Amino acid sequence: MKRLIRSVFQRQTPAALAALFLATPAHADGLIDNVNGYTLDAKGRLERFNGLLIDGKGKVAKLLDRRDKRPEKLDFRLDGQGRTLIPGLIDAHGHVMALGYQALQLDLSDTGSLAQAQEKLAAYAAARPTPVWIQGGGWNQEKWSLGRFPTAADIDAVVRDRPVVLARIDGHAILANSAAIAAAGITAKTPDPAGGRIERDAKGNPTGVFVDAAQELIRAAVPKPLPRERDAALAKAQEILLGYGITATADMGTSVDDWSVMRRMGDAGRLRLRILAYAFGIDPLLSIAGTGPTPWLYDGHLRMVGVKLFADGALGSRGAWLKQPYADATGQKGLQFLDDAKVRNLMSRAAMDGFQVAIHAIGDAANAQALAAVEELSDTYKGDRRWRIEHAQIADPADLPRFGRNGIIASMQPVHQTSDRLMAEARLGTDRLAGAYAWKSMLKAGARLAFGSDYPVESPDPFAGLATAISREDANGQPMGGWHPAERLTIEEALAAFTLGGAYASFAEDRLGTLEPGHDADFILLDRDPLAAGPAEIRQTKILETWIGGARAWVRK
Amino acid sequence: MKRLIRSVFQRQTPAALAALFLATPAHADGLIDNVNGYTLDAKGRLERFNGLLIDGKGKVAKLLDRRDKRPEKLDFRLDGQGRTLIPGLIDAHGHVMALGYQALQLDLSDTGSLAQAQEKLAAYAAARPTPVWIQGGGWNQEKWSLGRFPTAADIDAVVRDRPVVLARIDGHAILANSAAIAAAGITAKTPDPAGGRIERDAKGNPTGVFVDAAQELIRAAVPKPLPRERDAALAKAQEILLGYGITATADMGTSVDDWSVMRRMGDAGRLRLRILAYAFGIDPLLSIAGTGPTPWLYDGHLRMVGVKLFADGALGSRGAWLKQPYADATGQKGLQFLDDAKVRNLMSRAAMDGFQVAIHAIGDAANAQALAAVEELSDTYKGDRRWRIEHAQIADPADLPRFGRNGIIASMQPVHQTSDRLMAEARLGTDRLAGAYAWKSMLKAGARLAFGSDYPVESPDPFAGLATAISREDANGQPMGGWHPAERLTIEEALAAFTLGGAYASFAEDRLGTLEPGHDADFILLDRDPLAAGPAEIRQTKILETWIGGARAWVRK
Repeated sequence: MKRLIRSVFQRQTPAALAALFLATPAHADGLIDNVNGYTLDAKGRLERFNGLLIDGKGKVAKLLDRRDKRPEKLDFRLDGQGRTLIPGLIDAHGHVMALGYQALQLDLSDTGSLAQAQEKLAAYAAARPTPVWIQGGGWNQEKWSLGRFPTAADIDAVVRDRPVVLARIDGHAILANSAAIAAAGITAKTPDPAGGRIERDAKGNPTGVFVDAAQELIRAAVPKPLPRERDAALAKAQEILLGYGITATADMGTSVDDWSVMRRMGDAGRLRLRILAYAFGIDPLLSIAGTGPTPWLYDGHLRMVGVKLFADGALGSRGAWLKQPYADATGQKGLQFLDDAKVRNLMSRAAMDGFQVAIHAIGDAANAQALAAVEELSDTYKGDRRWRIEHAQIADPADLPRFGRNGIIASMQPVHQTSDRLMAEARLGTDRLAGAYAWKSMLKAGARLAFGSDYPVESPDPFAGLATAISREDANGQPMGGWHPAERLTIEEALAAFTLGGAYASFAEDRLGTLEPGHDADFILLDRDPLAAGPAEIRQTKILETWIGGARAWVRK
Repeated sequence: MKRLIRSVFQRQTPAALAALFLATPAHADGLIDNVNGYTLDAKGRLERFNGLLIDGKGKVAKLLDRRDKRPEKLDFRLDGQGRTLIPGLIDAHGHVMALGYQALQLDLSDTGSLAQAQEKLAAYAAARPTPVWIQGGGWNQEKWSLGRFPTAADIDAVVRDRPVVLARIDGHAILANSAAIAAAGITAKTPDPAGGRIERDAKGNPTGVFVDAAQELIRAAVPKPLPRERDAALAKAQEILLGYGITATADMGTSVDDWSVMRRMGDAGRLRLRILAYAFGIDPLLSIAGTGPTPWLYDGHLRMVGVKLFADGALGSRGAWLKQPYADATGQKGLQFLDDAKVRNLMSRAAMDGFQVAIHAIGDAANAQALAAVEELSDTYKGDRRWRIEHAQIADPADLPRFGRNGIIASMQPVHQTSDRLMAEARLGTDRLAGAYAWKSMLKAGARLAFGSDYPVESPDPFAGLATAISREDANGQPMGGWHPAERLTIEEALAAFTLGGAYASFAEDRLGTLEPGHDADFILLDRDPLAAGPAEIRQTKILETWIGGARAWVRK
């Protein structure tokens, strides 16, 4: 790796070198030569090239094969030394600010037991003697093999002197210690809010975990992040995503404050990542974007495309809304967030001004509700609407064909399948999994597939996603041969879902997703060729360089 | 006027003509020739010129006198035919969105009696059969010679079938009809909120007028404007201001929603007016601008500079906070909005991140509080802070010298003096007016003066402001010789307060306020020369053309 960079730089003039290191380099005519380059074309067919010519506006000018004549006058020329070059990857479903905050807060996602988590929390608190709120997340009682939700007492045992709030790995539950519960004024008398649940003991006292809408009771008491913390979080998220080869991402649930942070970074000329924003509900959508999607801002780096709505919660916290009761919780069917009329009203409010609608639906009942709403609204809102169903995780097999109609996009996250596998079997039972994480079935039904990671719920690493997509095996190769292997994809199908699928899913296929003349020159240089590697090897892929708009945006150090 | 435009256009090529009519024309090298041009320089000295050379970036390239050689190669050349050309005027205190809304809503500011207002309301309601809320404003019980506040019953007599809310001319009180009071759920049991007053009858029932903070009780029930209404309001406000020769304005109290509208217009390339935004309190300030003033956005058309705070209400509604009781309301001293510690905390929160502070202070007690806060904070926040006191309307003469210290800017609105004159005499008595609307005393004390109109409370017409500033007579020439004439300014002093004073007051004197090489080519062509006219004639001044950034932004039709 080091060698590549050095050899590349040895061919540069000092002036060109300086230009390459600018945070936002001026565009220049350039050539990335001698690469194992490929892209999918608009129809998903593989196209190979040896050289990539970039124009003065940061767009792809031409793909060259070995025999094509190279231009003589260029502002820069890089020898790729045969490395693999592919289009920048697009994460169709992530949470940009949350990724940054998580990276700056206490991260428990690598803890394998409650004891480990307590140890990490104790060290974190000891390093911060000022008794401000401790925030963090990443816990997963399943991974801890706890057999129960953790409790406030588990945290009090380590930190009592200040409030501690810890989000569950899926963002659908919060664990609070006693100081935080007291600060939020929650007692046995506090009722469960609509769409939420307070975990309680036999006397009704809150025991520490607040599920879905109940999280707000705690969150309302948490001090808001300072502007400098917000700015730092976005800068951190950008750095992380570029390092994983993500050149564009959907931000699924942008608040007014989030948008301000993104604009500040854009105004300062420091936005390198491309962000496709979906407002966190109708109010911020109308406040920010007003009468329709924003134009592309900052030379194609930011756009508000539409709105994120929620039909239900998540499987881990049993917030996913199911048609039949949970196999592991008698009588519970999860949380229906909105009645049918409300879903349609919200979707209609967005669609009437040309906004795209992305609706979170995990359980089969939530997916059926979203499908029915799309079917009804498609009569009124004709044309190219690209209704997005986010996660589309557990579908009733009988509903699968409906994903192929009305231009629906199934926005799915391959890694969830491996993280959720055992839990899904427990929650649903083994007989109700035929429409679970059903990528191939979605494609066969005619749905457009867009892949993402749901970071920070999962790592944003798209190569983990690609490896999972073609194998349905986890990082340890389990289960061997893949979980419900009929739903595996080919590597081309998986790559398409992480490139042109994501571009199409945000109305950006005219500029992103493929390397073709006139498209943004967003690409990555890799340490191996995913087309020539098995899933375990793909999972190890390292990004060497990430280029956006024809300029180097990230380099491995 | 028509003649000037036509003669100018006859000299244009078709291509140049087309360029001139673009909403946001490309910059071009050009010459405005043969004008009676003048500007103040940075020190307030008059400088005359005959031609204005504009560079390709929309900046002033050079001021030419009659003998200077004209360049031969130019993109455009206009013959001013001897008309007067002066710098674009700056309104240092206005409310951009409110101006637009008012222009699109029911405007009662031209009614001279309650009966007239009722007639106008009836016609407005009849033209809108859909029973949505009727909103409007501009009433003034003083102008109606009503001798009391108007009541809900006065409005019910005309409109009963839907809520009606009407803002007082000064924005410090709302008149609501019974339907609006019911919709807001206000009864005899509703207590007066802190910093506000509900007008009541003997039994405590609300009678229709809600003063200062009590307005929020009604406003909370009013449906929020739709995005397209917001966009229309800003477009309308821009059109109005440009038509009055205002090329830049401070927006005193920008909400997050207001800011979004401004950005949408900027993103769409339709912002011609320059807006210097002061956030409506600390929360929107931090949400929007974060860690410091924004950069200049949209090629110098938008910037958030600082925050607007409120020390008290207004004189008309007896919300202005006085040192001694009102002469016409026994024992009442008005409304103190914030205690001393809170004022300083808010100012400090803004100043610590380099934001400018603009604090509304009308009564002499509020002004003294603001002065004391500045004096204390200046020890901590050194350097060029330009603390702004907005209105600085009624100063204790003993406090006047304090305005000359610590770099304070007195941001005043000349026309308020004529509108308020009789009311001020009633509220304060004739013995307490020595520090009222004391422009000349402020200058003598060493304060920096910045003039504005407080539109839509007053008309944004800056020529009414200039005429008032030099005469202290109203539009009818009353009182002859001027009210407290020692406070009159020279026309040069008044012009300075409407140009370089406003620029300085928003840290923009490096680009706005004077026509000098390198500054934005923002100027206006007039139908007369204010320097050669008396106040009555100045008041009749008509703008022929308004140019911003070297491009025509408005032309009289």
